[in-house]
Amino acid sequence: MSTLPDIRVGSGFDVHAYDHAAPLRLAGLDWPGEPGLSGHSDGDAVCHAVVDALLGAAGLGDIGGLVGVDAPDTANAASTGFVRLALERLAAAGFRPVNVSVQIVGNRPKFSPRREEAERVMTELVGAPVSLSATTTDGLGFTGRGEGIAAIATALIAR
Amino acid sequence: MSTLPDIRVGSGFDVHAYDHAAPLRLAGLDWPGEPGLSGHSDGDAVCHAVVDALLGAAGLGDIGGLVGVDAPDTANAASTGFVRLALERLAAAGFRPVNVSVQIVGNRPKFSPRREEAERVMTELVGAPVSLSATTTDGLGFTGRGEGIAAIATALIAR
Amino acid sequence: MSTLPDIRVGSGFDVHAYDHAAPLRLAGLDWPGEPGLSGHSDGDAVCHAVVDALLGAAGLGDIGGLVGVDAPDTANAASTGFVRLALERLAAAGFRPVNVSVQIVGNRPKFSPRREEAERVMTELVGAPVSLSATTTDGLGFTGRGEGIAAIATALIAR
Ligand SMILES: [Zn+2]
Ligand SMILES: [Zn+2]
Ligand SMILES: [Zn+2]
Repeated sequence: MSTLPDIRVGSGFDVHAYDHAAPLRLAGLDWPGEPGLSGHSDGDAVCHAVVDALLGAAGLGDIGGLVGVDAPDTANAASTGFVRLALERLAAAGFRPVNVSVQIVGNRPKFSPRREEAERVMTELVGAPVSLSATTTDGLGFTGRGEGIAAIATALIAR
Repeated sequence: MSTLPDIRVGSGFDVHAYDHAAPLRLAGLDWPGEPGLSGHSDGDAVCHAVVDALLGAAGLGDIGGLVGVDAPDTANAASTGFVRLALERLAAAGFRPVNVSVQIVGNRPKFSPRREEAERVMTELVGAPVSLSATTTDGLGFTGRGEGIAAIATALIAR
Repeated sequence: MSTLPDIRVGSGFDVHAYDHAAPLRLAGLDWPGEPGLSGHSDGDAVCHAVVDALLGAAGLGDIGGLVGVDAPDTANAASTGFVRLALERLAAAGFRPVNVSVQIVGNRPKFSPRREEAERVMTELVGAPVSLSATTTDGLGFTGRGEGIAAIATALIAR
Protein backbone atom coordinates (compact mmCIF):
# COMPACT_ATOMS: atom_id res chain seq x y z
CA MET A 1 0.00 0.00 0.00
CA SER A 2 1.27 3.46 -0.86
CA THR A 3 1.59 6.18 1.74
CA LEU A 4 -1.44 8.43 1.78
CA PRO A 5 -0.59 11.91 0.53
CA ASP A 6 -1.82 14.76 2.71
CA ILE A 7 -4.98 15.73 0.86
CA ARG A 8 -8.20 17.26 2.16
CA VAL A 9 -11.67 17.98 0.84
CA GLY A 10 -13.74 21.08 1.50
CA SER A 11 -17.26 22.23 0.77
CA GLY A 12 -18.64 25.73 0.33
CA PHE A 13 -22.15 27.04 -0.21
CA ASP A 14 -23.32 30.59 -0.82
CA VAL A 15 -26.55 32.38 -1.71
CA HIS A 16 -27.24 35.93 -2.85
CA ALA A 17 -30.52 37.58 -3.76
CA TYR A 18 -30.79 39.43 -7.05
CA ASP A 19 -30.38 43.20 -6.86
CA HIS A 20 -31.80 44.51 -10.10
CA ALA A 21 -30.15 47.90 -9.53
CA ALA A 22 -26.64 46.42 -9.31
CA PRO A 23 -24.31 45.16 -12.04
CA LEU A 24 -23.71 41.41 -12.04
CA ARG A 25 -20.33 39.96 -11.11
CA LEU A 26 -20.29 36.17 -11.17
CA ALA A 27 -17.43 33.70 -11.45
CA GLY A 28 -15.03 36.61 -11.81
CA LEU A 29 -16.81 37.99 -14.91
CA ASP A 30 -18.89 41.07 -15.57
CA TRP A 31 -22.33 40.30 -17.05
CA PRO A 32 -23.66 43.51 -18.65
CA GLY A 33 -27.45 43.66 -18.81
CA GLU A 34 -27.98 40.89 -16.26
CA PRO A 35 -29.50 41.49 -12.80
CA GLY A 36 -26.81 41.86 -10.15
CA LEU A 37 -26.48 40.23 -6.75
CA SER A 38 -26.97 41.96 -3.41
CA GLY A 39 -24.24 41.96 -0.81
CA HIS A 40 -21.68 44.05 0.98
CA SER A 41 -19.06 43.07 -1.62
CA ASP A 42 -19.86 42.48 -5.29
CA GLY A 43 -21.96 39.45 -4.30
CA ASP A 44 -20.04 36.99 -6.48
CA ALA A 45 -21.49 33.78 -5.03
CA VAL A 46 -19.11 31.59 -7.05
CA CYS A 47 -16.01 33.26 -5.59
CA HIS A 48 -17.50 33.13 -2.09
CA ALA A 49 -18.30 29.42 -2.32
CA VAL A 50 -14.81 28.74 -3.66
CA VAL A 51 -13.28 30.65 -0.74
CA ASP A 52 -15.29 28.67 1.80
CA ALA A 53 -14.46 25.35 0.11
CA LEU A 54 -10.72 26.14 0.09
CA LEU A 55 -10.68 27.44 3.68
CA GLY A 56 -12.87 24.56 4.84
CA ALA A 57 -10.55 21.99 3.29
CA ALA A 58 -7.55 23.55 5.04
CA GLY A 59 -9.33 24.13 8.36
CA LEU A 60 -8.65 27.85 8.13
CA GLY A 61 -12.08 29.23 9.03
CA ASP A 62 -14.52 30.80 6.63
CA ILE A 63 -15.01 33.89 4.48
CA GLY A 64 -16.56 35.86 7.34
CA GLY A 65 -13.38 35.48 9.37
CA LEU A 66 -11.18 36.09 6.33
CA VAL A 67 -12.49 39.40 5.09
CA GLY A 68 -14.97 40.72 7.64
CA VAL A 69 -18.18 40.82 5.67
CA ASP A 70 -19.20 44.18 7.09
CA ALA A 71 -15.77 45.86 7.05
CA PRO A 72 -15.77 49.28 5.32
CA ASP A 73 -12.82 48.35 3.10
CA THR A 74 -14.65 45.41 1.55
CA ALA A 75 -17.72 47.44 0.50
CA ASN A 76 -18.28 46.69 -3.18
CA ALA A 77 -14.97 44.82 -3.20
CA ALA A 78 -14.18 42.47 -6.08
CA SER A 79 -14.56 38.98 -4.65
CA THR A 80 -11.69 37.71 -6.78
CA GLY A 81 -9.52 39.45 -4.19
CA PHE A 82 -11.06 37.26 -1.48
CA VAL A 83 -10.04 34.17 -3.46
CA ARG A 84 -6.46 35.48 -3.68
CA LEU A 85 -6.44 36.14 0.05
CA ALA A 86 -7.72 32.62 0.79
CA LEU A 87 -5.00 31.16 -1.42
CA GLU A 88 -2.37 33.16 0.52
CA ARG A 89 -3.66 31.66 3.75
CA LEU A 90 -3.57 28.18 2.24
CA ALA A 91 -0.01 28.68 1.02
CA ALA A 92 1.06 29.95 4.43
CA ALA A 93 -0.32 26.73 5.92
CA GLY A 94 1.54 24.66 3.33
CA PHE A 95 -1.48 23.76 1.20
CA ARG A 96 -2.16 24.17 -2.51
CA PRO A 97 -5.43 23.67 -4.40
CA VAL A 98 -5.74 20.50 -6.51
CA ASN A 99 -9.07 21.31 -8.14
CA VAL A 100 -12.41 22.96 -7.42
CA SER A 101 -15.83 22.04 -8.84
CA VAL A 102 -18.65 24.57 -8.60
CA GLN A 103 -22.32 24.34 -9.50
CA ILE A 104 -24.35 27.51 -10.01
CA VAL A 105 -28.05 27.13 -9.24
CA GLY A 106 -30.42 29.74 -10.65
CA ASN A 107 -32.41 30.99 -13.61
CA ARG A 108 -30.08 33.81 -14.61
CA PRO A 109 -27.64 34.54 -16.08
CA LYS A 110 -27.79 31.96 -18.86
CA PHE A 111 -24.41 30.50 -18.07
CA SER A 112 -23.52 28.04 -20.83
CA PRO A 113 -22.45 30.60 -23.48
CA ARG A 114 -19.74 31.91 -21.13
CA ARG A 115 -18.99 28.73 -19.17
CA GLU A 116 -15.59 28.14 -20.73
CA GLU A 117 -14.57 31.79 -20.40
CA ALA A 118 -15.53 31.75 -16.73
CA GLU A 119 -13.62 28.50 -16.19
CA ARG A 120 -10.48 30.05 -17.71
CA VAL A 121 -10.73 33.11 -15.47
CA MET A 122 -11.38 31.10 -12.30
CA THR A 123 -8.72 28.50 -13.15
CA GLU A 124 -6.12 31.21 -13.66
CA LEU A 125 -7.23 32.89 -10.43
CA VAL A 126 -7.03 29.70 -8.35
CA GLY A 127 -3.94 28.26 -10.07
CA ALA A 128 -5.60 24.84 -10.38
CA PRO A 129 -8.51 23.50 -12.45
CA VAL A 130 -11.83 25.12 -11.57
CA SER A 131 -14.86 23.60 -13.30
CA LEU A 132 -18.19 25.40 -13.44
CA SER A 133 -21.61 24.09 -14.28
CA ALA A 134 -25.06 25.59 -14.02
CA THR A 135 -28.49 24.19 -13.37
CA THR A 136 -31.99 25.40 -12.62
CA THR A 137 -34.45 24.00 -10.10
CA ASP A 138 -37.41 23.31 -12.39
CA GLY A 139 -39.32 26.35 -11.08
CA LEU A 140 -39.01 25.23 -7.45
CA GLY A 141 -37.74 27.07 -4.40
CA PHE A 142 -36.18 30.54 -4.27
CA THR A 143 -33.92 29.85 -7.23
CA GLY A 144 -36.89 28.57 -9.25
CA ARG A 145 -38.88 31.70 -8.40
CA GLY A 146 -36.02 33.84 -9.65
CA GLU A 147 -35.22 35.39 -6.28
CA GLY A 148 -31.51 34.65 -6.23
CA ILE A 149 -28.57 32.40 -6.99
CA ALA A 150 -26.86 29.62 -5.04
CA ALA A 151 -23.36 28.27 -5.60
CA ILE A 152 -22.12 24.90 -4.34
CA ALA A 153 -18.36 24.27 -4.38
CA THR A 154 -16.21 21.27 -3.54
CA ALA A 155 -12.44 21.67 -3.35
CA LEU A 156 -9.57 19.23 -3.11
CA ILE A 157 -6.29 20.51 -1.70
CA ALA A 158 -2.90 18.94 -0.96
CA ARG A 159 0.01 19.70 1.34
CA MET B 1 6.34 12.22 1.10
CA SER B 2 4.69 10.24 -1.66
CA THR B 3 3.92 11.72 -5.05
CA LEU B 4 0.36 12.97 -5.25
CA PRO B 5 -1.72 10.83 -7.59
CA ASP B 6 -3.78 12.74 -10.16
CA ILE B 7 -7.15 12.77 -8.42
CA ARG B 8 -9.97 15.31 -8.66
CA VAL B 9 -13.24 15.98 -6.86
CA GLY B 10 -16.50 17.06 -8.47
CA SER B 11 -19.91 18.15 -7.26
CA GLY B 12 -23.30 17.88 -8.93
CA PHE B 13 -26.73 19.12 -7.94
CA ASP B 14 -30.06 18.57 -9.66
CA VAL B 15 -33.72 19.26 -8.98
CA HIS B 16 -36.90 18.02 -10.68
CA ALA B 17 -40.51 18.76 -9.86
CA TYR B 18 -42.93 15.87 -9.45
CA ASP B 19 -45.07 15.07 -12.48
CA HIS B 20 -47.91 12.95 -11.16
CA ALA B 21 -48.82 11.84 -14.69
CA ALA B 22 -45.37 10.41 -15.39
CA PRO B 23 -43.77 7.15 -14.25
CA LEU B 24 -40.88 7.56 -11.81
CA ARG B 25 -37.34 6.72 -12.82
CA LEU B 26 -34.82 7.41 -10.06
CA ALA B 27 -31.31 6.08 -9.48
CA GLY B 28 -31.70 3.93 -12.56
CA LEU B 29 -34.75 2.10 -11.19
CA ASP B 30 -38.44 2.10 -12.12
CA TRP B 31 -40.73 2.92 -9.19
CA PRO B 32 -44.25 1.72 -10.09
CA GLY B 33 -47.01 3.63 -8.31
CA GLU B 34 -44.77 6.54 -7.31
CA PRO B 35 -45.16 10.07 -8.72
CA GLY B 36 -42.74 10.71 -11.58
CA LEU B 37 -40.40 13.61 -12.23
CA SER B 38 -40.86 16.25 -14.90
CA GLY B 39 -38.19 16.86 -17.48
CA HIS B 40 -37.25 16.52 -21.10
CA SER B 41 -35.59 13.16 -20.36
CA ASP B 42 -36.88 10.70 -17.75
CA GLY B 43 -36.04 13.25 -15.04
CA ASP B 44 -33.75 10.92 -13.08
CA ALA B 45 -32.18 13.52 -10.78
CA VAL B 46 -29.72 11.00 -9.32
CA CYS B 47 -28.25 10.16 -12.73
CA HIS B 48 -28.12 13.84 -13.66
CA ALA B 49 -26.30 14.83 -10.46
CA VAL B 50 -23.85 11.95 -10.97
CA VAL B 51 -23.17 13.12 -14.54
CA ASP B 52 -22.47 16.67 -13.38
CA ALA B 53 -20.23 15.49 -10.53
CA LEU B 54 -18.19 13.28 -12.89
CA LEU B 55 -17.92 15.92 -15.63
CA GLY B 56 -17.17 18.62 -13.05
CA ALA B 57 -14.35 16.59 -11.53
CA ALA B 58 -12.79 16.07 -14.96
CA GLY B 59 -13.39 19.63 -16.16
CA LEU B 60 -15.45 18.35 -19.08
CA GLY B 61 -18.43 20.70 -18.88
CA ASP B 62 -21.88 19.76 -17.70
CA ILE B 63 -24.91 17.69 -18.63
CA GLY B 64 -26.39 20.48 -20.75
CA GLY B 65 -23.34 20.47 -22.99
CA LEU B 66 -23.15 16.67 -22.98
CA VAL B 67 -26.62 15.74 -24.14
CA GLY B 68 -28.43 18.92 -25.15
CA VAL B 69 -31.29 19.06 -22.71
CA ASP B 70 -33.77 20.12 -25.38
CA ALA B 71 -32.54 17.88 -28.21
CA PRO B 72 -35.30 15.81 -29.84
CA ASP B 73 -33.36 12.57 -29.49
CA THR B 74 -33.16 12.88 -25.71
CA ALA B 75 -36.92 13.31 -25.20
CA ASN B 76 -37.93 10.73 -22.58
CA ALA B 77 -34.42 9.29 -22.80
CA ALA B 78 -33.20 6.96 -20.06
CA SER B 79 -30.72 9.01 -18.05
CA THR B 80 -28.57 5.97 -17.44
CA GLY B 81 -27.44 6.55 -21.02
CA PHE B 82 -26.22 10.02 -20.02
CA VAL B 83 -24.09 8.45 -17.29
CA ARG B 84 -22.56 6.04 -19.83
CA LEU B 85 -21.85 8.95 -22.16
CA ALA B 86 -20.19 10.94 -19.37
CA LEU B 87 -18.02 7.93 -18.52
CA GLU B 88 -16.93 7.67 -22.17
CA ARG B 89 -15.85 11.31 -22.06
CA LEU B 90 -13.95 10.71 -18.84
CA ALA B 91 -12.21 7.66 -20.28
CA ALA B 92 -11.27 9.62 -23.41
CA ALA B 93 -9.66 12.21 -21.14
CA GLY B 94 -7.79 9.49 -19.24
CA PHE B 95 -9.93 9.59 -16.10
CA ARG B 96 -11.80 6.86 -14.24
CA PRO B 97 -14.31 7.20 -11.39
CA VAL B 98 -13.07 6.26 -7.91
CA ASN B 99 -16.39 6.60 -6.10
CA VAL B 100 -19.56 8.70 -6.07
CA SER B 101 -21.73 9.59 -3.07
CA VAL B 102 -25.27 10.84 -3.68
CA GLN B 103 -27.91 12.16 -1.31
CA ILE B 104 -31.55 12.25 -2.40
CA VAL B 105 -33.61 14.97 -0.73
CA GLY B 106 -37.39 14.61 -0.84
CA ASN B 107 -40.49 13.05 0.69
CA ARG B 108 -41.05 10.41 -1.98
CA PRO B 109 -40.30 7.74 -2.94
CA LYS B 110 -39.56 6.04 0.37
CA PHE B 111 -36.01 5.13 -0.57
CA SER B 112 -34.65 2.87 2.16
CA PRO B 113 -36.41 -0.36 1.09
CA ARG B 114 -34.68 -0.19 -2.31
CA ARG B 115 -31.47 1.62 -1.32
CA GLU B 116 -29.22 -1.41 -1.74
CA GLU B 117 -30.83 -2.40 -5.04
CA ALA B 118 -30.33 1.13 -6.38
CA GLU B 119 -26.71 1.15 -5.19
CA ARG B 120 -26.05 -2.11 -7.06
CA VAL B 121 -27.54 -0.74 -10.28
CA MET B 122 -25.70 2.59 -10.07
CA THR B 123 -22.41 0.94 -9.01
CA GLU B 124 -22.57 -1.43 -11.97
CA LEU B 125 -23.45 1.49 -14.26
CA VAL B 126 -20.57 3.68 -13.06
CA GLY B 127 -18.04 0.88 -12.64
CA ALA B 128 -17.02 2.20 -9.22
CA PRO B 129 -18.77 2.36 -5.84
CA VAL B 130 -21.86 4.58 -5.87
CA SER B 131 -23.45 5.12 -2.46
CA LEU B 132 -26.97 6.49 -2.11
CA SER B 133 -28.72 7.94 0.89
CA ALA B 134 -32.00 9.74 1.32
CA THR B 135 -33.23 12.41 3.66
CA THR B 136 -36.21 14.70 4.07
CA THR B 137 -36.20 18.38 5.02
CA ASP B 138 -38.50 18.26 8.05
CA GLY B 139 -41.41 19.79 6.10
CA LEU B 140 -39.34 22.80 5.00
CA GLY B 141 -38.77 24.23 1.53
CA PHE B 142 -39.92 22.81 -1.79
CA THR B 143 -38.83 19.29 -0.91
CA GLY B 144 -40.64 19.51 2.43
CA ARG B 145 -43.81 20.71 0.70
CA GLY B 146 -43.65 17.69 -1.61
CA GLU B 147 -43.08 19.71 -4.78
CA GLY B 148 -40.03 17.85 -6.03
CA ILE B 149 -36.74 16.08 -5.43
CA ALA B 150 -33.15 17.27 -5.18
CA ALA B 151 -30.03 15.15 -5.60
CA ILE B 152 -26.56 16.14 -4.37
CA ALA B 153 -23.58 14.19 -5.68
CA THR B 154 -19.87 14.27 -4.92
CA ALA B 155 -17.48 12.29 -7.11
CA LEU B 156 -13.83 11.37 -6.83
CA ILE B 157 -11.98 10.48 -10.02
CA ALA B 158 -8.40 9.54 -10.87
CA ARG B 159 -6.18 9.66 -13.93
CA MET C 1 3.08 7.44 -11.37
CA SER C 2 2.36 6.51 -7.78
CA THR C 3 -0.19 3.89 -6.82
CA LEU C 4 -3.52 5.42 -5.96
CA PRO C 5 -4.26 5.07 -2.26
CA ASP C 6 -7.72 3.73 -1.40
CA ILE C 7 -9.53 6.97 -0.67
CA ARG C 8 -13.21 7.85 -1.05
CA VAL C 9 -15.35 10.94 -0.86
CA GLY C 10 -18.80 11.22 0.71
CA SER C 11 -21.50 13.85 0.94
CA GLY C 12 -24.15 14.41 3.58
CA PHE C 13 -27.03 16.86 3.83
CA ASP C 14 -29.49 17.39 6.65
CA VAL C 15 -32.26 19.82 7.57
CA HIS C 16 -34.13 20.42 10.81
CA ALA C 17 -36.87 22.92 11.61
CA TYR C 18 -36.50 25.13 14.65
CA ASP C 19 -38.36 24.00 17.74
CA HIS C 20 -38.51 27.04 19.98
CA ALA C 21 -39.50 24.91 22.97
CA ALA C 22 -36.39 22.71 22.72
CA PRO C 23 -32.79 23.39 23.75
CA LEU C 24 -30.32 23.71 20.88
CA ARG C 25 -27.66 21.09 20.29
CA LEU C 26 -25.52 21.84 17.24
CA ALA C 27 -22.06 20.64 16.25
CA GLY C 28 -21.84 18.76 19.53
CA LEU C 29 -22.33 21.90 21.63
CA ASP C 30 -25.15 23.18 23.84
CA TRP C 31 -26.35 26.67 22.88
CA PRO C 32 -28.29 28.09 25.88
CA GLY C 33 -30.90 30.69 24.92
CA GLU C 34 -30.96 29.70 21.24
CA PRO C 35 -33.98 28.07 19.56
CA GLY C 36 -33.59 24.30 19.36
CA LEU C 37 -34.11 21.93 16.46
CA SER C 38 -36.97 19.49 16.07
CA GLY C 39 -36.35 15.81 15.64
CA HIS C 40 -36.59 12.41 17.23
CA SER C 41 -33.02 12.74 18.51
CA ASP C 42 -31.47 16.06 19.61
CA GLY C 43 -31.74 17.31 16.02
CA ASP C 44 -28.02 18.11 15.67
CA ALA C 45 -27.95 18.63 11.89
CA VAL C 46 -24.16 18.95 11.84
CA CYS C 47 -23.64 15.54 13.43
CA HIS C 48 -26.27 14.00 11.14
CA ALA C 49 -24.68 15.41 7.98
CA VAL C 50 -21.26 14.20 9.16
CA VAL C 51 -22.65 10.70 9.74
CA ASP C 52 -24.15 10.57 6.25
CA ALA C 53 -20.96 11.90 4.64
CA LEU C 54 -18.83 9.29 6.44
CA LEU C 55 -21.21 6.40 5.74
CA GLY C 56 -21.70 7.56 2.14
CA ALA C 57 -17.95 7.65 1.53
CA ALA C 58 -17.58 4.11 2.85
CA GLY C 59 -20.71 2.75 1.15
CA LEU C 60 -22.17 1.75 4.49
CA GLY C 61 -25.71 3.09 4.11
CA ASP C 62 -27.11 6.13 5.85
CA ILE C 63 -28.11 7.42 9.27
CA GLY C 64 -31.62 5.98 8.98
CA GLY C 65 -30.19 2.50 8.65
CA LEU C 66 -27.56 3.13 11.32
CA VAL C 67 -29.67 4.25 14.22
CA GLY C 68 -33.32 3.80 13.28
CA VAL C 69 -34.64 7.32 13.33
CA ASP C 70 -37.86 6.30 15.08
CA ALA C 71 -36.41 3.76 17.50
CA PRO C 72 -37.46 4.34 21.11
CA ASP C 73 -33.88 4.18 22.37
CA THR C 74 -32.78 7.10 20.19
CA ALA C 75 -35.50 9.49 21.43
CA ASN C 76 -33.69 12.69 22.48
CA ALA C 77 -30.39 10.87 21.97
CA ALA C 78 -27.19 12.88 21.72
CA SER C 79 -26.23 12.77 18.06
CA THR C 80 -22.55 12.68 18.95
CA GLY C 81 -23.24 9.03 19.74
CA PHE C 82 -24.39 8.51 16.15
CA VAL C 83 -21.05 9.87 14.93
CA ARG C 84 -19.20 7.44 17.20
CA LEU C 85 -21.33 4.57 15.90
CA ALA C 86 -20.64 5.55 12.28
CA LEU C 87 -16.91 5.64 13.03
CA GLU C 88 -17.11 2.13 14.49
CA ARG C 89 -18.72 0.92 11.27
CA LEU C 90 -16.03 2.62 9.21
CA ALA C 91 -13.27 1.09 11.31
CA ALA C 92 -14.86 -2.36 10.99
CA ALA C 93 -14.77 -1.91 7.21
CA GLY C 94 -11.11 -0.85 7.36
CA PHE C 95 -11.70 2.87 6.76
CA ARG C 96 -10.61 5.92 8.73
CA PRO C 97 -11.70 9.55 8.26
CA VAL C 98 -9.15 11.89 6.64
CA ASN C 99 -11.11 15.13 7.08
CA VAL C 100 -14.66 16.48 7.05
CA SER C 101 -15.82 19.93 5.96
CA VAL C 102 -19.27 21.14 7.04
CA GLN C 103 -21.24 24.25 6.17
CA ILE C 104 -24.12 25.34 8.39
CA VAL C 105 -26.82 27.30 6.56
CA GLY C 106 -29.22 29.38 8.67
CA ASN C 107 -29.84 32.59 10.53
CA ARG C 108 -29.30 31.25 14.04
CA PRO C 109 -27.32 30.56 16.10
CA LYS C 110 -24.68 33.19 15.33
CA PHE C 111 -21.93 30.67 14.77
CA SER C 112 -18.67 32.58 14.41
CA PRO C 113 -18.08 33.30 18.14
CA ARG C 114 -18.05 29.55 18.86
CA ARG C 115 -16.73 28.24 15.53
CA GLU C 116 -13.31 27.26 16.87
CA GLU C 117 -14.78 25.64 19.98
CA ALA C 118 -17.17 23.60 17.84
CA GLU C 119 -14.33 22.58 15.52
CA ARG C 120 -12.31 21.33 18.49
CA VAL C 121 -15.23 19.26 19.80
CA MET C 122 -16.08 17.79 16.39
CA THR C 123 -12.41 17.15 15.50
CA GLU C 124 -11.87 15.28 18.76
CA LEU C 125 -15.09 13.33 18.20
CA VAL C 126 -14.20 12.31 14.63
CA GLY C 127 -10.47 11.80 15.25
CA ALA C 128 -9.59 13.78 12.12
CA PRO C 129 -9.87 17.45 11.16
CA VAL C 130 -13.48 18.70 11.04
CA SER C 131 -13.89 22.24 9.73
CA LEU C 132 -17.09 24.18 10.23
CA SER C 133 -18.33 27.30 8.54
CA ALA C 134 -21.65 29.10 8.57
CA THR C 135 -23.55 31.17 6.07
CA THR C 136 -26.97 32.70 5.62
CA THR C 137 -29.09 32.75 2.47
CA ASP C 138 -29.66 36.49 2.16
CA GLY C 139 -33.26 36.20 3.40
CA LEU C 140 -34.17 33.59 0.77
CA GLY C 141 -35.77 30.19 1.17
CA PHE C 142 -36.65 28.38 4.39
CA THR C 143 -33.31 29.19 5.98
CA GLY C 144 -33.67 32.86 5.04
CA ARG C 145 -37.17 32.94 6.55
CA GLY C 146 -35.77 31.55 9.80
CA GLU C 147 -37.69 28.28 9.63
CA GLY C 148 -34.74 25.94 10.14
CA ILE C 149 -31.14 24.98 9.57
CA ALA C 150 -29.37 22.97 6.87
CA ALA C 151 -25.96 21.34 7.11
CA ILE C 152 -23.86 20.25 4.13
CA ALA C 153 -20.92 17.94 4.79
CA THR C 154 -18.19 16.50 2.59
CA ALA C 155 -15.92 13.79 3.96
CA LEU C 156 -12.72 12.20 2.74
CA ILE C 157 -11.83 8.75 4.10
CA ALA C 158 -9.01 6.30 3.48
CA ARG C 159 -8.51 2.57 3.84
ZN1 LIG D 1 -21.54 35.58 -0.59
ZN1 LIG E 1 -32.05 16.83 -14.25
ZN1 LIG F 1 -31.10 15.08 11.11
